[in-house]
Amino acid sequence: MTYCVAIKCNDGLVFAADTRTAAGVDDVRTYNKLHVLEVPGQRVFVILSAGNLATTQYVLAYARREMNDPNATTSLRTVRHMFDAADYLGQLSVRAQKQAAEANMNVNVETTLILGGQIMGEDPAIYMIYPLGNCISASPEMPFLQIGEIKYGKPILDRFVRPQVKLEDAARCALVSLDSTMRSNISVGPPVDVAILPRDGLAISHSLRLDFDTPYYASLKDSWGRQLENAVRNLPKFDWEVQQSLPLSPHPGSNFVAGQQQRQVDASSHPQQGWQAAQWSSDTDDSGRR
Amino acid sequence: MTYCVAIKCNDGLVFAADTRTAAGVDDVRTYNKLHVLEVPGQRVFVILSAGNLATTQYVLAYARREMNDPNATTSLRTVRHMFDAADYLGQLSVRAQKQAAEANMNVNVETTLILGGQIMGEDPAIYMIYPLGNCISASPEMPFLQIGEIKYGKPILDRFVRPQVKLEDAARCALVSLDSTMRSNISVGPPVDVAILPRDGLAISHSLRLDFDTPYYASLKDSWGRQLENAVRNLPKFDWEVQQSLPLSPHPGSNFVAGQQQRQVDASSHPQQGWQAAQWSSDTDDSGRR
Repeated sequence: MTYCVAIKCNDGLVFAADTRTAAGVDDVRTYNKLHVLEVPGQRVFVILSAGNLATTQYVLAYARREMNDPNATTSLRTVRHMFDAADYLGQLSVRAQKQAAEANMNVNVETTLILGGQIMGEDPAIYMIYPLGNCISASPEMPFLQIGEIKYGKPILDRFVRPQVKLEDAARCALVSLDSTMRSNISVGPPVDVAILPRDGLAISHSLRLDFDTPYYASLKDSWGRQLENAVRNLPKFDWEVQQSLPLSPHPGSNFVAGQQQRQVDASSHPQQGWQAAQWSSDTDDSGRR
Repeated sequence: MTYCVAIKCNDGLVFAADTRTAAGVDDVRTYNKLHVLEVPGQRVFVILSAGNLATTQYVLAYARREMNDPNATTSLRTVRHMFDAADYLGQLSVRAQKQAAEANMNVNVETTLILGGQIMGEDPAIYMIYPLGNCISASPEMPFLQIGEIKYGKPILDRFVRPQVKLEDAARCALVSLDSTMRSNISVGPPVDVAILPRDGLAISHSLRLDFDTPYYASLKDSWGRQLENAVRNLPKFDWEVQQSLPLSPHPGSNFVAGQQQRQVDASSHPQQGWQAAQWSSDTDDSGRR
C-alpha cells in the first residue's frame, strides 16, 4: 500500500508521501513515491504514485527519457498546460498496463498518480490520474488529492486544509495525516517525503525526508499527541457533568459548556427542540438493507 | 453502511452509533443500531450492529424473545459469562444467515455485532462478533472495538482512548470519531446515539440521541474544529521558518521549535543523524510490487 497527498494552496503546492512498498507482508521495501521532474526556471512537475510499482516506473522512465529527447513530439518539456501533462502521463500509464496485461498473469498492474506542478505563465495545479488514463483536478472546495490508503488521514485534511492556509501549515497537516495513516496501516511506512513548491517559484523550495527518529518528526508527533489529548479534554461538558461540578468548582467559563442543551433519554421527548430521545425499541424487518 | 464504536474504560463502557441505513443511495432510512437489553440490577447488554439489517433484527428478536421466555434453555438472562452471551448471539446470527442463504439470492446477509455489558459479579466486557459467529474481546492495549466504516474515525480513538480515561471523555471522543466519519462517508449519518454504562452500575446511566442541529452536538463540532485548527497551527515550526522569524519576533518558547533538527535536501546527507536527503532518482524495476 501507499499513502500520498497533494495540497493546493493559494501560495503554492505541498506534496507528501510515505516510502513503503510491499509485495505481501514478507516482502517490504523502501521506494520513493515522490518524484520531481523539472526544467529549471520554466516548469516543475511532481509525481506521486500509488499502485503497481512497475507501471509507475515505466511512466517515470518514459517521462524522463522523452523530456530529455529534443525529438520527442510530446513530453513534459513541450506540453502547454498542466492538463496536457496529466493527459500525457495517463497515456503512458495506460500503455504500461496494456503491455503488462499481454502476459495475462492476473496481476493488478493499475497505478493511480497525482501530478502537481506549474508551467511558467500558468497557475499551479494538481491532478489525480486514474488507471484509465483520465484525470481530475482539485477544486477550491476540495483543495487536496489523496491516493492509496486515504481514509485514516482524511479527517484532519478535511478540517484544516483551505486554499488560504500557509504552505508550511499545509505541510505540517500533511505530515499529521501521514502519521495517522502509518499508525493504522503497517503497509504505509516511514520515512516520509515532503516537498513544497511555492507559487511562481518554479522550483521546489524545501524538501524533507523524515523518519520516526528524525528529531523534527519526533517533536511533531509529540506535539500533536499532546494537543489532541487536550482538545478532547476541552470539549464541551455534558449537562450532568456541569450540574455535578457546580457545587465543587463554581468557576464557569474555563470550558465552553453546553449547559442545559442536551438531555438524558426521557419518554417525553421534544424533537422540535432539535433532539430526540433514544428509543430502544425493536425494529421492523426489512430484508436486504445494510 | 454504518459506524459503531464501543470503548472499555476502567470506569465502565461507552457505546456510540450512527443511525443511517441504506439499500443504495436512493433508499436511505434511519434505524437504531444501538440496542439495550437488560435485567434491571442484574445484567445489562448493549448490542451494536453493522451489516444486513434483517440478520440483525433476527438476532435481536430472538435474543429478546428468549430473554423473556422462562423455558428458554439459553438466553441473555441465563448465560453465566459475557463470553457466553457473545457466543449465543453469534449462533443466532449464523442461524439467521443460514436461513436467508437458503433462498440463494446472492445477497450479502452477513452482520457484524458488538456486544458490550456487564453481568453482576463479572467485569464489564466488550466483544466483536463476526459473521461466522466467533468473537474477540477488546484488550488494554486496544480498549475499543469498531464496526462498519471504521477508518476515518480510528486515528482519534488511537490517540486518545486508554483504559484510564473518564467515561465522559471517552464518549466525547466517540462523538468526534463519528463526526469525522459522517463528514467523509454519506452512508454514515445522523442522528447519533450514545450510551454510557458505568462499571457495576448495572444500568445505562446516560443515553443521548444527537442530531446536527442539537445544540450540544453543534457546540462540540464547533469546539473540535477550532481546537484542531489551532493544534495544526501550533505544531513545531520548520527550521527555515524559525530562521526567517528570528529577526522579526525574537521571543523563543511560545511554540516548541525543532530548531536546527531538520534540514533541506542536501547532496551531503547524513543518514546516521536520523534523517536522509530525499533522492529524486529513478527507481529500478520490480514488477508486481505495489
